[in-house]
Amino acid sequence: MSSTVLYMSMSLDGFIAGPNERPDNGLGDGGERLHEWCLPGGADDHAAAIGRLRGVNRAIYEDFMSTGAVVAGRGTFEPAGGWGGDHHDGVPIYILSRGPAPTWAAEWPAVHYVSSLAAGVGDAKHAAGDKNVLVHGAGIAQLALTAGLLDELEIHLVPVLMGDGRRLFEHLGVEPRELERVRVLEGEAGVTHLRYRVRR
Amino acid sequence: MSSTVLYMSMSLDGFIAGPNERPDNGLGDGGERLHEWCLPGGADDHAAAIGRLRGVNRAIYEDFMSTGAVVAGRGTFEPAGGWGGDHHDGVPIYILSRGPAPTWAAEWPAVHYVSSLAAGVGDAKHAAGDKNVLVHGAGIAQLALTAGLLDELEIHLVPVLMGDGRRLFEHLGVEPRELERVRVLEGEAGVTHLRYRVRR
Repeated sequence: MSSTVLYMSMSLDGFIAGPNERPDNGLGDGGERLHEWCLPGGADDHAAAIGRLRGVNRAIYEDFMSTGAVVAGRGTFEPAGGWGGDHHDGVPIYILSRGPAPTWAAEWPAVHYVSSLAAGVGDAKHAAGDKNVLVHGAGIAQLALTAGLLDELEIHLVPVLMGDGRRLFEHLGVEPRELERVRVLEGEAGVTHLRYRVRR
Repeated sequence: MSSTVLYMSMSLDGFIAGPNERPDNGLGDGGERLHEWCLPGGADDHAAAIGRLRGVNRAIYEDFMSTGAVVAGRGTFEPAGGWGGDHHDGVPIYILSRGPAPTWAAEWPAVHYVSSLAAGVGDAKHAAGDKNVLVHGAGIAQLALTAGLLDELEIHLVPVLMGDGRRLFEHLGVEPRELERVRVLEGEAGVTHLRYRVRR
């Protein structure tokens, strides 16, 4: 059975991007610090950096790159150039948006703009088959948690206090939600990979 | 050499108390959830609950109860009844406050109201000798981090999303601070104890 899994790199103080996020500054000021763990040696050449990944961090990278579908919001997808229409292995990508896809993304066969998160998650789980669904982005995480559509969280906890920026967990409402710790892995570069299942 | 160590229980979404904190609701609504791990079986009889602590959680409890001094703010100290004037083993307690101690706390020999955090931390380190200094409270943590007076953080990460309340990490300013992961321990009840050293 497919699970929806949020994969996010987060600072110890809860930020997933630095301040001053803009289309040309997608991770905010200093936000690239949060992704250094999966791009060892620098972000200039992603393929080379990923080739240098080893150990626990490599296993986590392979885990999220073996998912069978992707769900995100347009605020994550569009500043990232839509991942060129292929996040990994051509798996279907569902983008939550009130409007239609921009022209530059409308022709990509794997990309589906959806106006309902529930429908998008349903389609993604169906498309993923036995594989999990990668959920990515703070806005979509908040919506999916609130709607009960998120099954698991994989937090890559980065050993830094950002001090300012965009938080992963905001606007969740006031009802506490219990989690089950699935496992903890101590990754390279001080990153701790925390896996939780949302209790129903 | 004595280190100042912040010990705090925090939800995965970064809260150390629930909403609606008041003097008669010191942990906020639902905030007691964050302390269940060190009070197994209930908070009605603290001594009995602590007697039931086992394993990793017991070791962490013994770690912070073996510190040689305590530093906190009056917003932590006073709603807790000043811990009866003795947090543990009669070690000296330094309370940051703009004003003098209230009459009910002024006679306790271990309690010292200080108007300077730097002076209070200096006195606490001196008094603690070879032992560490327990730092407690969100406000004091923020001040100590900003002033460069915090050496280590011990976060008891509780598997719950509170959704609302008081955050541990706020108002830190915009300069990121790098941490060194010292160790990770998987405690009972799904609590993960994360120890970091603040890099200088």
